[in-house]
Amino acid sequence: MNDRFLKACRREPVDCTPVWLMRQAGRYMAEYRKLRERHPILEMIKTPELAAEVTLQPVRAFDLDAAIIFSDILPVLECLGLPLTFISGKGPVIERPVTTASDVDALPAEADRTPLNPTVEAVRLVRRELDGRTPLIGFSGAPFTLACYAIEGGSSRDFEQARLFMIREPAAWHGLMERLATVIADYLCAQVDAGAQAVQLFDSWAGLLNPMDYKRFAQPYSHRILSRVRQHADVPVIHFATGSSGILPELKEAGGTVIGIDSRTDLGRARSLLGSDIAVQGNLDPVYLLAGPEAFSSHVDHILKTGGTMPGHIFNLGHGVLKQTPVEHVRALVDMVHERSQRPHAGSAPGP
Amino acid sequence: MNDRFLKACRREPVDCTPVWLMRQAGRYMAEYRKLRERHPILEMIKTPELAAEVTLQPVRAFDLDAAIIFSDILPVLECLGLPLTFISGKGPVIERPVTTASDVDALPAEADRTPLNPTVEAVRLVRRELDGRTPLIGFSGAPFTLACYAIEGGSSRDFEQARLFMIREPAAWHGLMERLATVIADYLCAQVDAGAQAVQLFDSWAGLLNPMDYKRFAQPYSHRILSRVRQHADVPVIHFATGSSGILPELKEAGGTVIGIDSRTDLGRARSLLGSDIAVQGNLDPVYLLAGPEAFSSHVDHILKTGGTMPGHIFNLGHGVLKQTPVEHVRALVDMVHERSQRPHAGSAPGP
Repeated sequence: MNDRFLKACRREPVDCTPVWLMRQAGRYMAEYRKLRERHPILEMIKTPELAAEVTLQPVRAFDLDAAIIFSDILPVLECLGLPLTFISGKGPVIERPVTTASDVDALPAEADRTPLNPTVEAVRLVRRELDGRTPLIGFSGAPFTLACYAIEGGSSRDFEQARLFMIREPAAWHGLMERLATVIADYLCAQVDAGAQAVQLFDSWAGLLNPMDYKRFAQPYSHRILSRVRQHADVPVIHFATGSSGILPELKEAGGTVIGIDSRTDLGRARSLLGSDIAVQGNLDPVYLLAGPEAFSSHVDHILKTGGTMPGHIFNLGHGVLKQTPVEHVRALVDMVHERSQRPHAGSAPGP
Repeated sequence: MNDRFLKACRREPVDCTPVWLMRQAGRYMAEYRKLRERHPILEMIKTPELAAEVTLQPVRAFDLDAAIIFSDILPVLECLGLPLTFISGKGPVIERPVTTASDVDALPAEADRTPLNPTVEAVRLVRRELDGRTPLIGFSGAPFTLACYAIEGGSSRDFEQARLFMIREPAAWHGLMERLATVIADYLCAQVDAGAQAVQLFDSWAGLLNPMDYKRFAQPYSHRILSRVRQHADVPVIHFATGSSGILPELKEAGGTVIGIDSRTDLGRARSLLGSDIAVQGNLDPVYLLAGPEAFSSHVDHILKTGGTMPGHIFNLGHGVLKQTPVEHVRALVDMVHERSQRPHAGSAPGP
């Protein structure tokens, strides 16, 4: 069994730096595109066999140290009675966004977990298929990021409407966050019960907040979720946000075994700021992966060097793989990380 | 004459914290909307009398400590033969974006300064009109941000195309940056010669870069511009970027008398990181200004407290005023900053 990833999460010695890539299953792979021709994105997510197949595609194609379940962060909103559609070229659309305090009051008192069942089932299928060879990561969006979509009604550069709602209607905001936190914690625990050996909490837009607002409006809910998962089972938890240079200490406070660092942050500075009692994941710019090995070679060296100053580094991108990325670039990156980070005396490899 | 702003730029004692607001002239003011009904945005910028009038509107309406010339960062691109249009609801569009290295080679060897003349003339008109009562700030976009628009062809969340070009075509990138740096430095010096008493360099998207890329692809050109302006005249230079928590030391290295801090960064942390030998400007979230005095009161206190730990703080937003902002909120903010930051013994006010 390849346990490099799980060891690095626990800051234990590894034979070389483990690597997986956010959005490693996706449109850049021909196998994926072939399935997508016949199935809309929500159908792929909602059909356990399809989600499982897509999850496994990159694990078969590359020497990755972890699989991550194929899904999306938004189906959690369906549990609160907020149906969504994906419109080609526009991305996700929440059909009836939350725009007033009474919209929050009108949400069902009891969340409906059924929209998440297919993903939990897919976790079970993938885990069985992998048979312990590669660890499987489950995930969910964090409450702040999901609330942003629920209020804004879709994607946005700054989520101004959502942040305005948060400021003007703090009671309703906290009500929405409470509901999201409960269903997200349940969802992550269900994925762990189904076989996920680690989970990642994606707080994609938390970097839009300054530390004061993050602590007041987002941190308590992420903290509650991360604590509940850790109480439920002894699995590593990766806590990730983009544009998060300004709130790294607060992200750590909220919890997580590993902090995911985005591409704009220098990994060495992040490590000094976070201290040696936590692992880090990251942080190659996906644009470099798209540009190719010649372009990313020196960045890989820099990331391995700064990430490797303390135990507990998982190599990853700072954000998801871009859809135009050639598969050979992905293969070259994964192999480069392994080759250049070999520590023959640290892992279980026999001595000379 | 009100010289609080200029004193704070030089880190000299002031009677209270000076305040001005990015995009303080704009659609949130009825006087502005009335003019905009009759004139498209580019006509407003290109007609010195209109630009001057719009510049003065907020200075007449509120107790602001500085005026900033009404213009846009993009007309600089016209100097390189890249015409632009503003499409309602879509924003700026560069008609023939730079997409290949040969597009850079095909740019005119000698930049045409005439597209910038109306703004320089507007500076002259405003300076005469203000007659020393309120200092006037000139500005330009920074080369990185302008190159992003030139390549991407318009606005974008991540400017992926532009950053990919930068990585794949470094020689062409540097060629484009060279040309931009020359015309921007000339432009800022011309504004100073026309009467601008300070200038701001807006590197709106520099926060998309990690420190390594910023140093390689952007910093040398901003540094050259900021040095040339300082050699040309003894005027304060404000250096601003958004999402810049991760590159603050590099922004300081590039130059500037004042570093503009965006809303996502804690001002106190920025001050400790930057040190006491530089002034700071910022950093209320524009969404708070939109939400109103009850919402922004505690944030104003926090910003005045953390900004005031060392001499040299100019109060501002972390980004531009949002167009839906009620004018009473702007008035309340300006007055609140002045009232709550009074230092009766520090300025020129007589003792008791």
